[in-house]
Amino acid sequence: MSLLRYDLTTNDWVIFAPERSRRPHEWKQALEQGEHPKRAAGPCPFCPGSEGMTGQEICAVRSSSTPNAPDWRVRVIPNKFPALRIEEESLRFQEGPVFRYMGGCGAHEVIIESPEHDRILAQHPVDHIELVIRTLQQRFNDLLKDRRFQSIVIFKNHGEQAGTSLRHPHCQLIATPVVPQMLRWRHRIATEYFDQMGRCLYCVLMQEELSAGRRVVAENSDFAAIAPYASHVPFELRICPKQHQASFGWIDAGQLKSLAELLKTVLTKLYIGLDNPDFNLTINTAPRGDEDEDYFLWHLQILPRLTTAAGFELGSGMSINPVLPEEAADFLRTI
Amino acid sequence: MSLLRYDLTTNDWVIFAPERSRRPHEWKQALEQGEHPKRAAGPCPFCPGSEGMTGQEICAVRSSSTPNAPDWRVRVIPNKFPALRIEEESLRFQEGPVFRYMGGCGAHEVIIESPEHDRILAQHPVDHIELVIRTLQQRFNDLLKDRRFQSIVIFKNHGEQAGTSLRHPHCQLIATPVVPQMLRWRHRIATEYFDQMGRCLYCVLMQEELSAGRRVVAENSDFAAIAPYASHVPFELRICPKQHQASFGWIDAGQLKSLAELLKTVLTKLYIGLDNPDFNLTINTAPRGDEDEDYFLWHLQILPRLTTAAGFELGSGMSINPVLPEEAADFLRTI
Repeated sequence: MSLLRYDLTTNDWVIFAPERSRRPHEWKQALEQGEHPKRAAGPCPFCPGSEGMTGQEICAVRSSSTPNAPDWRVRVIPNKFPALRIEEESLRFQEGPVFRYMGGCGAHEVIIESPEHDRILAQHPVDHIELVIRTLQQRFNDLLKDRRFQSIVIFKNHGEQAGTSLRHPHCQLIATPVVPQMLRWRHRIATEYFDQMGRCLYCVLMQEELSAGRRVVAENSDFAAIAPYASHVPFELRICPKQHQASFGWIDAGQLKSLAELLKTVLTKLYIGLDNPDFNLTINTAPRGDEDEDYFLWHLQILPRLTTAAGFELGSGMSINPVLPEEAADFLRTI
Repeated sequence: MSLLRYDLTTNDWVIFAPERSRRPHEWKQALEQGEHPKRAAGPCPFCPGSEGMTGQEICAVRSSSTPNAPDWRVRVIPNKFPALRIEEESLRFQEGPVFRYMGGCGAHEVIIESPEHDRILAQHPVDHIELVIRTLQQRFNDLLKDRRFQSIVIFKNHGEQAGTSLRHPHCQLIATPVVPQMLRWRHRIATEYFDQMGRCLYCVLMQEELSAGRRVVAENSDFAAIAPYASHVPFELRICPKQHQASFGWIDAGQLKSLAELLKTVLTKLYIGLDNPDFNLTINTAPRGDEDEDYFLWHLQILPRLTTAAGFELGSGMSINPVLPEEAADFLRTI
């Protein structure tokens, strides 16, 4: 059972997802194994034939119409160790004058990208990558129908440094019952820019990057991949639509294909250029209800995990980046 | 030569400290070695006798009065790969309508905690720990005299997961020419709380923790060590003064001794209970000019690095913590 607690010093909620069965003296060992307890040796639970090892599937792309059969191409399942659950309440409770908590209401899903255990996303053909993105979009739009969920965070952890515990390639969605403060902050900044300048800040930044050209890594008719001017980590990349669009939920079939194509290009460049680096991928989108607004541009972010955030970053929130984005872009363009 | 660039989407500055000599194809290898290039095999540059391997020392606690002699007990030197330098300018420059940068003005110092290569802070006697904290305070107060520096971030990285590259125990100070946005945010929240309630938010939280008692790990007459109600990571600890005090720069000799005593207790508990975990330590203090204000309580923060921030955390800014702080406190109290 999980819960959220409000941090009055940051105005943000922290998710607590304790492993109830763990004894205090086992914490050290358990924690060393990462976010989730290590699975027992044996077959991969994400491989075809292991469908019985996961919870009932949420949806899948497959040739038959039999749920949990092994003929799927992309499969969505509940996370076995969910951070948040749909069964929990979203009511707030007060403990004394300052402590506040709420139930761990939300959802936590895993999108298994393909039946192939050792084939990473970059190595799939464009039409399969398109299938994965379309599945992410469908789950995003479906979860948004639950009015208790305020935000849907889509992400992918590739490699141990990026926090993954299962090698079989997968993405995840977490629906949260509160809007994360960091996203509120970014939306507020973008709204204020719009109010001042009458234009979408992210569109302006992308257009400036496209005309400067130095930090553009790749582009096609619908999307551009950029190493942003103020990248927080080495080889950080942002993929943005070229036409204003606030929500990832609203991209159409033509854009899906373009996005898959550019994502394959970019992931392949990283794979070759940096020798299959660990990375996190996230999708930033407008909040519920603002899908048609002018102030925010949804975008996909790739954050390679080549450096470690240390005491300075944790104590200040600022980043130290040893690689200028124009040098990162120069390098990646040649690949 | 380093510089800062303004991120218009987060209202924060990013520090760029490129290693100019590195060729693009060497990035992968170099980055894998962490924040700093690995030193050549050979004597530790922080050990006595290696004083010639560091830059000219900034100050030291020693028996003789000969700078750079090997008889020191605590030694402060410039960081060999500084994020920021006192020689740089703090002027802002505009590149076109949206891109803004400034020179990498600041300071980056290393406090070598003792001559002993293999003795971690917890293993030193209280009076030596006091010497280290006093040295940090002296450097903090001295750096604040330079009006170009807006913020002084004090931190310690212990262990590889915490981003350290040199084993010999040390702390660091980075003086930044801008106030980090995260600190502005926390000070703004604390100020608003003070305006509403007429009390310091951090003092209220500490008093509530002390009366609840469940999350108190250790205390003495001057300080309390608490696993905060909304801890962001497992076994996170906050050490606060029991009497309101906004700035770390203002603690007096008696408090220094108490702080050293409590820090030793707490670090020893972590060392034994979690088998010498990697951790970051940071000091959060009021901004320049607000040292005498009622709204903020300076505090020391210990963040063990037992879990990895993954895509969800990077995409939302929210934390998922698998350990409830009252269970962490129960466990640490018994040690």
